[in-house]
Amino acid sequence: MIIVLKPHLSRRDETAVLREIKKLGYKPHIMRGVARTVIGAIGDELKHRSLESLPGLFPQAVESVMPVQKRYKLVSREAHPANSTVEVRGNLIGGRKIQIMAGPCSVESEKQLMTTAHAVKAAGATILRGGAFKPRTSPYEFQGLGLKGLKLLAKARRETGLGIITELLSEDHVQMVAEFADIIQIGARNSQNFQLPIAAARTGKPVLLKRGLSMRIEEWLLAGEYVLSNNNPNLLFCERGIRTFETYTRNTLDLSTIPIIKKEAHSPIVIDPSQGAGRADLVMSMCKGAVAMGADALLIEVHPNPAEAWSDGAQQVSLELFARLMTELKPFIAAAGRD
Amino acid sequence: MIIVLKPHLSRRDETAVLREIKKLGYKPHIMRGVARTVIGAIGDELKHRSLESLPGLFPQAVESVMPVQKRYKLVSREAHPANSTVEVRGNLIGGRKIQIMAGPCSVESEKQLMTTAHAVKAAGATILRGGAFKPRTSPYEFQGLGLKGLKLLAKARRETGLGIITELLSEDHVQMVAEFADIIQIGARNSQNFQLPIAAARTGKPVLLKRGLSMRIEEWLLAGEYVLSNNNPNLLFCERGIRTFETYTRNTLDLSTIPIIKKEAHSPIVIDPSQGAGRADLVMSMCKGAVAMGADALLIEVHPNPAEAWSDGAQQVSLELFARLMTELKPFIAAAGRD
Amino acid sequence: MIIVLKPHLSRRDETAVLREIKKLGYKPHIMRGVARTVIGAIGDELKHRSLESLPGLFPQAVESVMPVQKRYKLVSREAHPANSTVEVRGNLIGGRKIQIMAGPCSVESEKQLMTTAHAVKAAGATILRGGAFKPRTSPYEFQGLGLKGLKLLAKARRETGLGIITELLSEDHVQMVAEFADIIQIGARNSQNFQLPIAAARTGKPVLLKRGLSMRIEEWLLAGEYVLSNNNPNLLFCERGIRTFETYTRNTLDLSTIPIIKKEAHSPIVIDPSQGAGRADLVMSMCKGAVAMGADALLIEVHPNPAEAWSDGAQQVSLELFARLMTELKPFIAAAGRD
Amino acid sequence: MIIVLKPHLSRRDETAVLREIKKLGYKPHIMRGVARTVIGAIGDELKHRSLESLPGLFPQAVESVMPVQKRYKLVSREAHPANSTVEVRGNLIGGRKIQIMAGPCSVESEKQLMTTAHAVKAAGATILRGGAFKPRTSPYEFQGLGLKGLKLLAKARRETGLGIITELLSEDHVQMVAEFADIIQIGARNSQNFQLPIAAARTGKPVLLKRGLSMRIEEWLLAGEYVLSNNNPNLLFCERGIRTFETYTRNTLDLSTIPIIKKEAHSPIVIDPSQGAGRADLVMSMCKGAVAMGADALLIEVHPNPAEAWSDGAQQVSLELFARLMTELKPFIAAAGRD
Repeated sequence: MIIVLKPHLSRRDETAVLREIKKLGYKPHIMRGVARTVIGAIGDELKHRSLESLPGLFPQAVESVMPVQKRYKLVSREAHPANSTVEVRGNLIGGRKIQIMAGPCSVESEKQLMTTAHAVKAAGATILRGGAFKPRTSPYEFQGLGLKGLKLLAKARRETGLGIITELLSEDHVQMVAEFADIIQIGARNSQNFQLPIAAARTGKPVLLKRGLSMRIEEWLLAGEYVLSNNNPNLLFCERGIRTFETYTRNTLDLSTIPIIKKEAHSPIVIDPSQGAGRADLVMSMCKGAVAMGADALLIEVHPNPAEAWSDGAQQVSLELFARLMTELKPFIAAAGRD
Repeated sequence: MIIVLKPHLSRRDETAVLREIKKLGYKPHIMRGVARTVIGAIGDELKHRSLESLPGLFPQAVESVMPVQKRYKLVSREAHPANSTVEVRGNLIGGRKIQIMAGPCSVESEKQLMTTAHAVKAAGATILRGGAFKPRTSPYEFQGLGLKGLKLLAKARRETGLGIITELLSEDHVQMVAEFADIIQIGARNSQNFQLPIAAARTGKPVLLKRGLSMRIEEWLLAGEYVLSNNNPNLLFCERGIRTFETYTRNTLDLSTIPIIKKEAHSPIVIDPSQGAGRADLVMSMCKGAVAMGADALLIEVHPNPAEAWSDGAQQVSLELFARLMTELKPFIAAAGRD
Repeated sequence: MIIVLKPHLSRRDETAVLREIKKLGYKPHIMRGVARTVIGAIGDELKHRSLESLPGLFPQAVESVMPVQKRYKLVSREAHPANSTVEVRGNLIGGRKIQIMAGPCSVESEKQLMTTAHAVKAAGATILRGGAFKPRTSPYEFQGLGLKGLKLLAKARRETGLGIITELLSEDHVQMVAEFADIIQIGARNSQNFQLPIAAARTGKPVLLKRGLSMRIEEWLLAGEYVLSNNNPNLLFCERGIRTFETYTRNTLDLSTIPIIKKEAHSPIVIDPSQGAGRADLVMSMCKGAVAMGADALLIEVHPNPAEAWSDGAQQVSLELFARLMTELKPFIAAAGRD
Repeated sequence: MIIVLKPHLSRRDETAVLREIKKLGYKPHIMRGVARTVIGAIGDELKHRSLESLPGLFPQAVESVMPVQKRYKLVSREAHPANSTVEVRGNLIGGRKIQIMAGPCSVESEKQLMTTAHAVKAAGATILRGGAFKPRTSPYEFQGLGLKGLKLLAKARRETGLGIITELLSEDHVQMVAEFADIIQIGARNSQNFQLPIAAARTGKPVLLKRGLSMRIEEWLLAGEYVLSNNNPNLLFCERGIRTFETYTRNTLDLSTIPIIKKEAHSPIVIDPSQGAGRADLVMSMCKGAVAMGADALLIEVHPNPAEAWSDGAQQVSLELFARLMTELKPFIAAAGRD
């Protein structure tokens, strides 16, 4: 930790600060600068108590405290310089091939799901998405088919060979969801509800961790650390848009997360342009950008009839638009040196 | 719902839109304005499917769709014009008296908790706060004493008569926490993890629902609706700061929530200035503002030795500062016409 | 305008609202819905007074007011369905060719500028950027060479044939800057300082209008309207990142503005990845995404020795990195069907 | 500056970094910690080039760079420990008395202005606000009466003795506005358009500097530094709400700025609850909070007939509500130990 002292400090105040730093387990190292004296507190920041309370405790003496170490370890490139990959039913996420995960926001009926599953497979998707448990802003909105939805997903997998990704909403459902899912999705609203990623991690299934609506990169990496530190290396980060002041789109898709996650971490990065924009008419363009910037996979909401969807109709693309999207993406996938 | 059509629309496109509106259960009502034609879709928006997908479905014809009804019912002043109050061990929250909830961020030891409990009681607090289960950004930080912490809180209640508020982190702990707590706190990271407020609500205990880091007022009211619609009228809203671009404070405490919640809803509003600022030196001023603006209760982090706190030391006030704060608040409480 | 009334309204209150609507020049049209009565106020919203004060004036009667018309006209695709293009010294922005604007953040010296100009030209840029007047957060930072900088830019143009883009900071400089610049840049801090875009527009020179740090799309379009309504059709929108809660990057580059501006407006869209990220190591990836999503031009900060730059060294790319970037962009430009 | 190095660094890389630090004028001081080596670069950060480009220049060697010095000097409490006050026609802002500045958003007519001026004076205001030049989001909205408005303000001053505060929009108007105004207001859209605060400062008149919509505290203090460093000590900071994700209010009024500005700077702090909320019904509560938290003055929009205001009708309070507000504020002013 670096402790910046106030100017014109009495020797007695300085001594008191030094004493407290030692008491908390650090070895202080003093640097007297031009305008400020700075103390380097040497010690493992992940083991010792934080010094962040010093400015409050010594308001006349301590101006600010800055951590030096990164707070995450296992997700870091420093710990694991090579790219990690996650295998899902023979499909490698994070490898040369860009994987497409597609399907309806919610599983609504057998007919809706099977129609979609066959269509997205035909267009080139390898993984089927579909919500069986839905987190909804209002208690009066459709909350998902639950177990019945999971069974329909399993049936779609048997028929098409597609892998299945579906959201886990509750610790109570973890065994049930793990039984059916090939990838367990932790949604944006739950990405700092750490009990849920921990429970998902312990099933051993791949975990797709969405970025929370107002999650800083560092917090997202630390949430990923909760997965890896529970002995599950199969982590996928998924950017789905953050909350900003803009109201034209539902969220602001932050595509800069692609090079940032690649730089800081070793796990694959997935982009969800459907949630990211909240508008079907922007999905095509965002997919192109994501592919060009190096995304390892895309997660796209597709519905046979978006106008009559039971949830989030505005952001689901039709089967026709999805097929066109897959065709238009091809030159960008090639330009990115991917398959 | 209000559907705004694009200008220069063909009759055929208009007919198609009208047909879809009727199909989804609404009765359309056309208004031809100067620059735009607008359709009022008459029907209960809480029962029928949303029309939000129309701009995507008819991109040439539909410009935008605006909901008319409020999405929340039970939390609304329309449903319940009078103020609601919540009783906790003989103390009324939402009545004439401003209730002070105070105590450490985390329960750390018997000595730490008892010292704090006696001190905050002596200064005028009626409810003791203390975290037994702690949601921490990093897996390497102190996660709380768990059941042992709950038992210490119960002991402090027996010794002092203070009510107890503590956070619920996991559905798996709901029975355990409900056994010990007088108020169950749902933290900011879990306020849209709806399974948790539902589980808390079903215990029948009062539920304090913190505003999420990037939760709009409407979303907060709807999260409250999850509590009330599970047959628990004992809801408390708690503002604890939102996430903005500002970095001087950890969060931006939004005190305008006090008049807004009073206007829109009937449940009491609690202010948490400790989380709100993340800095002990701003707590005093924020408490004064909160009281002046009509807060029903304050939730303040107090620690016998903030520098050595196991979590969030920077924002906890010392016992001395807390006692001074309680004294300085008095004229503002009187000015607000409260006790 | 749409006026949503409160439920259970007295006939007298309704009459008072109707009277006020008429008084302000609108023709009211009543729609009685299931849960709410809604009034459509028919009239030109750009001519009449706004009705936004009604909820304040009739707090018991009016719940909310929603505008129906778009507030912008000239920038809108409705007014001008085809793409607009802007010509700069024989280079068309908004045409098939993606134009690259590159150069140092600040003009620092003849040597620095000429080295950069020749290098960016060799790599394929057609327009040279360089700040002569610099808006700096602190008064103690380098504020630009002023007129001397403009003269150096003119010299670089003579030597290389590159067009010149430079920022206008003050109405006092408008003649001077217009004399030297081929494109006048209005920076993010001044995009709602409307006097400046107006003054720039009146010179007749092309105006590049950066998005403000916290400007909504609608506000940006309206700022563009200030340019077009001052009889200057040569408008360029430039996204350079918005301010969010994220601290890893200096700003959050919002690439969704590319399809949005293309949809709502007819003027070209330029992406500035240097300001957008504030980090040179992210520029390459962002350029690829911008090109894939349909950007018409890129604005890139390039410096012969970023470490010794007089401003914003962290975000300027070296000449070598710029040359590599131009090479790596080629397949993405081809994939986008551009030259 | 503090330079954090990457782990496992070669001696050669370290040497290269040290060489660059010396080249830029700093004296490096090495601290070898447990997980990281840190270099303290000793030297005046306000004089030397920033080291922020090092992570870009040495991506394998430098992890991050942190400044140590504060970037502002003259506004700082360190430079001027006592409170500053600003005198306006015999009224002291920043003294024991809380000053009330009130009046219409825009000057519309002699009758409107005189009615308001007499009413706000009778209720206790000492300064009259009124916009003669108005920055409007759309070019089709009322832009102010200009010189005619200034003359009406001067007439109101003669009749009532109230001081005058009005906004400066353009450098071209600076002499004209300074001739009439007692306080020159720099609006939120112009607070980082530094030419304008500089021009205002040079008139010698008191300058009220609004916080920009997305301005961090540090940036606001630095904008104030532009005023003080142009030899004008009469600076007022004015908080008027920041832009966040919330849509219920137009802006989020950040009342924590009151204790923060008091702590960091010596100039008075003014609160504008009208812009802050954008809703007249929240103004009363916000004024109470502002007074309780230590605001030195309030800036309130008042209009004889808000429904027919030419600008921002939704946020202006009526004469009656203003009179009631002044009465209800009294006990809070007393509680705060002010007059």
